[in-house]
Amino acid sequence: MSKGRVCLAYSGGLDTSTILKWLILEGYTVVCFLANVGQEEDWAAVEKKALALGAERMVIEDLQREFVEEIVFRAIQCNAIYEDRYLLGTSLARPVIARAQVRVAQQYNCDYLSHGCTGKGDDQVRFELAFKACNPSMKVIAPWRMPEFIQKFQGRADLLKFAAENNIPVSSTPKAPWSMDDNLVHCSYEAGVLEDPDHTPPKELWTRTIDPTDAPDKPYNFTLHFEKGIPVKLVTPDGEFTDSVELFKRLNKIGHDNGVGRIDIVENRFIGLKSRGCYDTPGLTIARLAHLDLEGLVLDSKVRKLRDQFITIEWSHCLYNGMYFSPEREFLENSIIFSQKHVTGEVRMSVYKGAAYVLGRKSDASNLYSQEDASMDSLETFQPMDTTGFIAIQAIRLEKFGLQKIKDGEPLCK
Amino acid sequence: MSKGRVCLAYSGGLDTSTILKWLILEGYTVVCFLANVGQEEDWAAVEKKALALGAERMVIEDLQREFVEEIVFRAIQCNAIYEDRYLLGTSLARPVIARAQVRVAQQYNCDYLSHGCTGKGDDQVRFELAFKACNPSMKVIAPWRMPEFIQKFQGRADLLKFAAENNIPVSSTPKAPWSMDDNLVHCSYEAGVLEDPDHTPPKELWTRTIDPTDAPDKPYNFTLHFEKGIPVKLVTPDGEFTDSVELFKRLNKIGHDNGVGRIDIVENRFIGLKSRGCYDTPGLTIARLAHLDLEGLVLDSKVRKLRDQFITIEWSHCLYNGMYFSPEREFLENSIIFSQKHVTGEVRMSVYKGAAYVLGRKSDASNLYSQEDASMDSLETFQPMDTTGFIAIQAIRLEKFGLQKIKDGEPLCK
Amino acid sequence: MSKGRVCLAYSGGLDTSTILKWLILEGYTVVCFLANVGQEEDWAAVEKKALALGAERMVIEDLQREFVEEIVFRAIQCNAIYEDRYLLGTSLARPVIARAQVRVAQQYNCDYLSHGCTGKGDDQVRFELAFKACNPSMKVIAPWRMPEFIQKFQGRADLLKFAAENNIPVSSTPKAPWSMDDNLVHCSYEAGVLEDPDHTPPKELWTRTIDPTDAPDKPYNFTLHFEKGIPVKLVTPDGEFTDSVELFKRLNKIGHDNGVGRIDIVENRFIGLKSRGCYDTPGLTIARLAHLDLEGLVLDSKVRKLRDQFITIEWSHCLYNGMYFSPEREFLENSIIFSQKHVTGEVRMSVYKGAAYVLGRKSDASNLYSQEDASMDSLETFQPMDTTGFIAIQAIRLEKFGLQKIKDGEPLCK
Amino acid sequence: MSKGRVCLAYSGGLDTSTILKWLILEGYTVVCFLANVGQEEDWAAVEKKALALGAERMVIEDLQREFVEEIVFRAIQCNAIYEDRYLLGTSLARPVIARAQVRVAQQYNCDYLSHGCTGKGDDQVRFELAFKACNPSMKVIAPWRMPEFIQKFQGRADLLKFAAENNIPVSSTPKAPWSMDDNLVHCSYEAGVLEDPDHTPPKELWTRTIDPTDAPDKPYNFTLHFEKGIPVKLVTPDGEFTDSVELFKRLNKIGHDNGVGRIDIVENRFIGLKSRGCYDTPGLTIARLAHLDLEGLVLDSKVRKLRDQFITIEWSHCLYNGMYFSPEREFLENSIIFSQKHVTGEVRMSVYKGAAYVLGRKSDASNLYSQEDASMDSLETFQPMDTTGFIAIQAIRLEKFGLQKIKDGEPLCK
Repeated sequence: MSKGRVCLAYSGGLDTSTILKWLILEGYTVVCFLANVGQEEDWAAVEKKALALGAERMVIEDLQREFVEEIVFRAIQCNAIYEDRYLLGTSLARPVIARAQVRVAQQYNCDYLSHGCTGKGDDQVRFELAFKACNPSMKVIAPWRMPEFIQKFQGRADLLKFAAENNIPVSSTPKAPWSMDDNLVHCSYEAGVLEDPDHTPPKELWTRTIDPTDAPDKPYNFTLHFEKGIPVKLVTPDGEFTDSVELFKRLNKIGHDNGVGRIDIVENRFIGLKSRGCYDTPGLTIARLAHLDLEGLVLDSKVRKLRDQFITIEWSHCLYNGMYFSPEREFLENSIIFSQKHVTGEVRMSVYKGAAYVLGRKSDASNLYSQEDASMDSLETFQPMDTTGFIAIQAIRLEKFGLQKIKDGEPLCK
Repeated sequence: MSKGRVCLAYSGGLDTSTILKWLILEGYTVVCFLANVGQEEDWAAVEKKALALGAERMVIEDLQREFVEEIVFRAIQCNAIYEDRYLLGTSLARPVIARAQVRVAQQYNCDYLSHGCTGKGDDQVRFELAFKACNPSMKVIAPWRMPEFIQKFQGRADLLKFAAENNIPVSSTPKAPWSMDDNLVHCSYEAGVLEDPDHTPPKELWTRTIDPTDAPDKPYNFTLHFEKGIPVKLVTPDGEFTDSVELFKRLNKIGHDNGVGRIDIVENRFIGLKSRGCYDTPGLTIARLAHLDLEGLVLDSKVRKLRDQFITIEWSHCLYNGMYFSPEREFLENSIIFSQKHVTGEVRMSVYKGAAYVLGRKSDASNLYSQEDASMDSLETFQPMDTTGFIAIQAIRLEKFGLQKIKDGEPLCK
Repeated sequence: MSKGRVCLAYSGGLDTSTILKWLILEGYTVVCFLANVGQEEDWAAVEKKALALGAERMVIEDLQREFVEEIVFRAIQCNAIYEDRYLLGTSLARPVIARAQVRVAQQYNCDYLSHGCTGKGDDQVRFELAFKACNPSMKVIAPWRMPEFIQKFQGRADLLKFAAENNIPVSSTPKAPWSMDDNLVHCSYEAGVLEDPDHTPPKELWTRTIDPTDAPDKPYNFTLHFEKGIPVKLVTPDGEFTDSVELFKRLNKIGHDNGVGRIDIVENRFIGLKSRGCYDTPGLTIARLAHLDLEGLVLDSKVRKLRDQFITIEWSHCLYNGMYFSPEREFLENSIIFSQKHVTGEVRMSVYKGAAYVLGRKSDASNLYSQEDASMDSLETFQPMDTTGFIAIQAIRLEKFGLQKIKDGEPLCK
Repeated sequence: MSKGRVCLAYSGGLDTSTILKWLILEGYTVVCFLANVGQEEDWAAVEKKALALGAERMVIEDLQREFVEEIVFRAIQCNAIYEDRYLLGTSLARPVIARAQVRVAQQYNCDYLSHGCTGKGDDQVRFELAFKACNPSMKVIAPWRMPEFIQKFQGRADLLKFAAENNIPVSSTPKAPWSMDDNLVHCSYEAGVLEDPDHTPPKELWTRTIDPTDAPDKPYNFTLHFEKGIPVKLVTPDGEFTDSVELFKRLNKIGHDNGVGRIDIVENRFIGLKSRGCYDTPGLTIARLAHLDLEGLVLDSKVRKLRDQFITIEWSHCLYNGMYFSPEREFLENSIIFSQKHVTGEVRMSVYKGAAYVLGRKSDASNLYSQEDASMDSLETFQPMDTTGFIAIQAIRLEKFGLQKIKDGEPLCK
């Protein structure tokens, strides 16, 4: 008799194939699940392999649209960034994958959710926090945190031996000396040789962008249109794109072809450690820059400062830390949407050999920028004399500060 | 009899030459002051012109070292940035210039400080707030906010007419259709044709960076060393640089030659309006990236979040708003310095056709990154099993959130 | 011929009566406006006096309901407080008064708005910023900032002389040696003898609360019910109150009778100076405490921290600085409302001789507090063993910190 | 042979006596440690009991001075408060206790640290995070999280049975229906009947304050002096106190005698749950109010806002969450100390039947408050006319906001 039914996040790779077989050997019935969030994959081969290994069922779901519209566009709306550098590519995909896995588990009456994340990374946290929020009653099997599993599989050699014994097909292409994870937004590279933070990633590592030195010798220009902070139209020499997924994929292609969006950083994991990661994130890098630029034109300065200081940083931390399904993320998101009421307009851009540039922007949605007002030649909007009073009032505190410094024997003007 | 002695910030241009002459005609004695903060200038010509126009004295001071060491390096230490884009080039120079002008005014017994800033910009605010903090008893003459002056000089034609009548030499090179301001850190371009935010700046506008398309076809690699967040050594194929000013100038050259550091934005002025500015900031763009990267390796995650959320943003606003000589800037700076205790190490970098990249970094000053810990293969530092408990505790709130959503009829997992 | 029609904020006092007469003498037609925001006033006498002095019309509007429901209840929802002490009584009333004055001015075709605020306080800023947001095209006459007016009226003697010459009735009751401003929320006392911050306000100063030493010898108990953060029912031994204005007035009475809500502080004005103010704020003090307490029971911890750190402080500053009609206040308010979704429940309270106490609270709206979970005796919700892992992961950073300290020669455990 | 030497935090109560005996029976040698942080205790009896039960040694250390000077005064300097209500009494004591326990463990060559905290509370987290920062190599035995211990002792009956079997003396006074923890700062009451958040604590619960209704019928006045934010002198009708510990104890007595400092709240534990706690905190409540008041007089407004928004809230969270020995607490503390440079002066206060009041304050250390400036009658400091310009510039954004609202069909002035 089965110990119960497990919904396993299955990628077709050596790790999750081992887990699949091991679960079956342990007496579980396994429903395999694979989310299509835009990664490169031979979907049919994964399905065939899962069934061959004894999975009761292989469920593959295309989540690209909900991924783009529900999460990626929200990240663009708030200029999401982690520690000033990382665009959160992996973290953004986790909530839609985890929610879909719970959905599938419920549909097929599973008792358990399982995944192949390691016990030292943040992904296990992201998946499981999402599982528990989405369905607190479902139990989790995390083999890489189970003593009996870890004992059995102490290294890659153990996995290969188990594979040989259990007829698990193993890819003949040699494993890259780093691990990768990709989705519609980016590809990440970490571990292996990258664990030395001073080891420059080799040219062949990057998969989502060509090397800037190999990019075309001419800038490529295009225009991105936003409505309430959401990209709604991309106009390029090669056509217009308005469907969310297509538009985003085309931004990816533009970024890819021109080498835009590579970063190489050391970041702080939620799990207390620092780790080194390389990421190429072509489309989102471009879209974020365009959005930032448009906000310069249409967002009020005080709203912007509050948003930058609290919303952007906090939303990014929520996503990074796996707190998507949380009261605070919902609270922050309500503010993001409100802030974008007038973020409607278009941004003309250029990409060239690794970098993206803004060429110009316009908007009819906001009255905040006025060529008339900004002009140094026009005196219509306000009397320059007003500034005298403004300065005088602002200076009250500073004069006292200067006088106190003199009294304290540390004059500001030495 | 003289109405008093004025210390005028004098650049040799048409505006300040007009002000110089006008002040003299109004009955003031004028001491001219020009700060060398690294801008391009024919210093001898400026002095000659000032004296020819009747200035009592022309004082030129080289402030490059205090500018770099006291302000620019502090900006690097806190990754200063305004509205996510602008590296504050103009704002950074203002405090040292204003303080030196007060010093000169005191030295030559001036009663007034004067400048040629327009009445609609932020520079007047920055200068005058600094004046008032540094010496609250000194009065300010701001001609562009004086009704009688504005009446007299309603446009460039009036200035040229006055120049002709008063033997003020006028440059024969035609004025660019925008205004510029440069110093060691950057050159800014605004007004004129740039007032249309959708007007792309022409290629010839940029003075501090060559066009990325004209940059060398090969990446240029170098290494920047930091001690407590301060750049202390730059190692390049063309030599090593350790003197602060030389080092920074060499970073500028590297950025210049490879087209690094251009931005084109619409920003929020302190004076309530939005304005469009273009800036090329080669060296600081590179140094900021290197510093950010090193912090990834050595800064604690919680300190970093606090610093990002309040110090970086607030210090940048202080500088932008002319609040350098203020209690809050001093308060923030105390935190910046404290945060940099272990930000010592080196960053290998590359620049290529408009972009800068990090190739690797290392540090002996901090134990926070550990290749051993980060490795997915090592289980020494912590038991993966610990993560199970970590997740369980973190999930308590989220499970309740999920259950409340179900009760409210909005289940998280639809 | 009239110079135009002015809508003057008229209180019937010596200052605004002088302004009214002076405006008429200057050639203006004056429409007087008085807002009823709950202050103590002989409305008929004010009207009679205005008309007697030559006002074209006296408009008195009861704004109590919009004041309570639109502003005061919002303050309760976000626990508004300025500099940890001040409940913002004066600032809260300004937006509804200013908006109504603009409405009246528009209705009676006025060209100008005028008020009697001094030129050194924050109220002038609050009124005029609201005027300009509500109707940017309307001009403002602020006599206490007009040189000709200030010259003419250099002290109280000048006002009394003018009153005598112009048949302005002057109250025979001697003026208190401080100034007061009251509304439904509080009464403020400042200036005069209070300008010495070490001068204790005399017992007779306070008008909205009896002296705690004179309060009843027995605690008075009652229960306040909230829905989404809004007080909706007050149950007392003397009856139930559900109408917003009546409920708030009854809270005032409870506070008044028991001496609750007095503070005496030195605060930072928006206008760069510090000033000393005394305030008695009976009802709002009680309602704020009840609301804070209920949030303890029902608000998620992370949402609460975000709300405390940015919404509460920023909304309070908006109101204090006269930025009610601003994009940032609207942005913050959107978050306040969202945060209150589950702040529904009741709080039992007691007041006694100057202080308010919470006796208990309950709510069916949130599942966050669970007697079962909280119990030290129950082990259902989570395995205590989970905490071991939680601590282990949280400790990773701290262990490194401790080791670094040892390396740096400053061990944490001396 | 001994399994090793354990340093056990031993209070003499039933729980830790059981643990002591159990550890011995398990084969450990036990050094007992008890910190004197100002709680009420029969020290000799505890020692006698520990030795009688088989402890190798009983170490009692008086930590009152380091507790007050290193932690409590820091809390006062930053007005520490958790969730707007809780003065952190328990959390403040933990770091000094934990550090001393590590010190003792090191001195007596212990291999383990042990404590009797439950597995569902925050205290275990606070102790163990401090242990791990202070000495990462020392192992922890937390019996209430060990399955074998929990199995054995499932309720109080099991503990009493074990006590009887092992000659552990049990107090004959019946246990209160709640648990208590006290130190110099406060006494906390939680669990038991208090788990119902609507159950009002009975009058006899409170131990550190008399009931306000029983307090003297006359206010008691005194003056508290600060230097750089630290209380340095307390002047009362009953004498002056300048020694840190004596001064604080006298504040406690004043608060106690007048019923000041009781709160009853539901708070968010670090460990994901909400819990209800009652606390009486007499002296710190008074000292915090005095400090807040003095800061009103001497602290710059912008520094204060930054400090309130970041330092106060974050330092309080650090302490509450057991993160005292952390990089972020050290970072915040550096800011606290810097902010207090001019917080020197005296505050006259009064306490009466449950509440504390400020009567007046003065300071020579800061020039920020000026009676001359604040006076509405004086026009020396600034020209009221300046405010016109100040308002005009501040209004630029707001006018645009008002106009945008009209364009959007939602005029601000309906």
